[in-house]
Amino acid sequence: MTTVNRQVRLAKRPVGRPDDSTWEITSEPIPEPSDGEFTVKVDYVSLDPAMRGWLDDVKSYVPPVAIGEVMRTHAVGRVVASKNAKFPEGQLVSGQFGVQEFALSDGRGALAVDESLAPAPTWLGALGFPGMTAYFGLTDVGRLEKGDTVLISGAAGAVGSIAGQIAKLKGATVIGVAGGPEKCAWLTEELGFDAAIDYKSESVGKALRAAAPDGIDIYFDNVGGEILDAALARLRKNARVALCGAISGYNATDPQPGPSRYLSLLVNRASMTGFIVFDYLDRFPEGMEAMSEWIRAGEIVTREQVETGGVEAFGRTLNLLFDGANTGKLVLKIS
Amino acid sequence: MTTVNRQVRLAKRPVGRPDDSTWEITSEPIPEPSDGEFTVKVDYVSLDPAMRGWLDDVKSYVPPVAIGEVMRTHAVGRVVASKNAKFPEGQLVSGQFGVQEFALSDGRGALAVDESLAPAPTWLGALGFPGMTAYFGLTDVGRLEKGDTVLISGAAGAVGSIAGQIAKLKGATVIGVAGGPEKCAWLTEELGFDAAIDYKSESVGKALRAAAPDGIDIYFDNVGGEILDAALARLRKNARVALCGAISGYNATDPQPGPSRYLSLLVNRASMTGFIVFDYLDRFPEGMEAMSEWIRAGEIVTREQVETGGVEAFGRTLNLLFDGANTGKLVLKIS
Repeated sequence: MTTVNRQVRLAKRPVGRPDDSTWEITSEPIPEPSDGEFTVKVDYVSLDPAMRGWLDDVKSYVPPVAIGEVMRTHAVGRVVASKNAKFPEGQLVSGQFGVQEFALSDGRGALAVDESLAPAPTWLGALGFPGMTAYFGLTDVGRLEKGDTVLISGAAGAVGSIAGQIAKLKGATVIGVAGGPEKCAWLTEELGFDAAIDYKSESVGKALRAAAPDGIDIYFDNVGGEILDAALARLRKNARVALCGAISGYNATDPQPGPSRYLSLLVNRASMTGFIVFDYLDRFPEGMEAMSEWIRAGEIVTREQVETGGVEAFGRTLNLLFDGANTGKLVLKIS
Repeated sequence: MTTVNRQVRLAKRPVGRPDDSTWEITSEPIPEPSDGEFTVKVDYVSLDPAMRGWLDDVKSYVPPVAIGEVMRTHAVGRVVASKNAKFPEGQLVSGQFGVQEFALSDGRGALAVDESLAPAPTWLGALGFPGMTAYFGLTDVGRLEKGDTVLISGAAGAVGSIAGQIAKLKGATVIGVAGGPEKCAWLTEELGFDAAIDYKSESVGKALRAAAPDGIDIYFDNVGGEILDAALARLRKNARVALCGAISGYNATDPQPGPSRYLSLLVNRASMTGFIVFDYLDRFPEGMEAMSEWIRAGEIVTREQVETGGVEAFGRTLNLLFDGANTGKLVLKIS
């Protein structure tokens, strides 16, 4: 068995799109647990659009990843050595283990993973932060109510695909925006969305007028940019915009224009509210219970796109997000 | 006594700034009340930035003023003929009487005015819609709490000047943005604002960093544009932006850029919420009681800029708002 732990560290802050010079692969001995700690052999790491923000040296909701630091991420793996009774050897766990083959944990933020409910990668998707982001973004920030018309961008992504299904389960009419006919077909044919708009081949504003002639009550925004403006133009009275992300501009090097239709918020007495899923940590039990029930009952379709290649493949896999080249939750198999 | 009622009617929808061609003065006989109605001799009419929006033929929170229609506005005047027992002859009343010398009313939306509390023009300002806009915008939309740091743009205007004083009375630190040294001095020396930023002579962003080093909890926005972006850049966690207006762009003929810093809402879990004071009509008693108490106790400074010249002066007086040439509530004396 190997004694080496290979890691992906931030080598250089990217300007625009991350590339090979952004990352370096380092090696160090596999860490040994002290009292209260355990060592995890990482099986899968999560790739998320928010990671791009963590690479910039700006004040944000979390400190940036430091130059030379192991890239921050959630991961799932198996305990291979333990001095922590809660996480014995052999236990599958999720936690913020970073992009590396082995991680040391004191158990904070770690969660025992129940493989009988769903396979490991799902615990980084529907049963992980993306699922909780969808759940609290819709129910709490979006104040979802039965009968609402809900628009979701990035709808074939990890968060959007779950958000749309939750909205359907709660009695909403759901319209998704995604890129390409395959993703759109997946939304309507497999996930039960009422309509899907392919932003690559049609005018979102025009398609939205057709799909939601009376306007929308909730816009769950993962992308920003022109699609946000198209959504603002269709708000109903008292609509809610839940700002989850803005991936369309994450790699931009020029200042991005703001939503020029923002005064629709005024005319429609609507709100636009940003949120960060970390703020809901103490309500995760509620969200996890709901999600587990839906998964157990087969009411939510979960999908992960599992890329392979280990730590060396991290940089290229991350960029799939910015190319819109993933459907469902993007994860990278490490071991 | 005259038998003629002169009126300001919308002649042509303005493109950009309203001008002489926008309005026409018409004359007709003074209306006689039928059963349940009364005739008001109008003393003062209100001039408000929102009027500009009513001139455009677009779907909004109220229908546009029609071509040929008497210009919509709130006004104060005295009942000169009445077949409505609630509003007898001689009573001073406020209501949506339009820009004209005499108006017919069935009493809907009309309010008996108590001159012992404040003179007639104040009933179009602090005790009228601007005062209620300030009150509900801050307390309900802004969810004002003691200790908050509150930024107000258009701070020397009808709404802003009252909003700032309410915020002070409720225990907030208050910073106003206004144009020119006289307005700024009025804010800090007479209204008790903690700081004032003169957007015409200094960088709002820089001045705001100095005045609110720890950021702001509430931004009460009357102006939009660059000042909105400067405010977004200084939001604290869970901050609230109350969107009341955006006068900086009301006469623009080009599409106006949106707030490019809007993702500050996401990072700071903040919200931006539009509101229309008309939605609070059934809570006006609460707001009017609070405002009356403050005025009675001398705790709120009210100020009206009373222009003269009657109906002929309406167009020129309205444009004072867009030139930033008013301090406090702008009204026009009609009779």
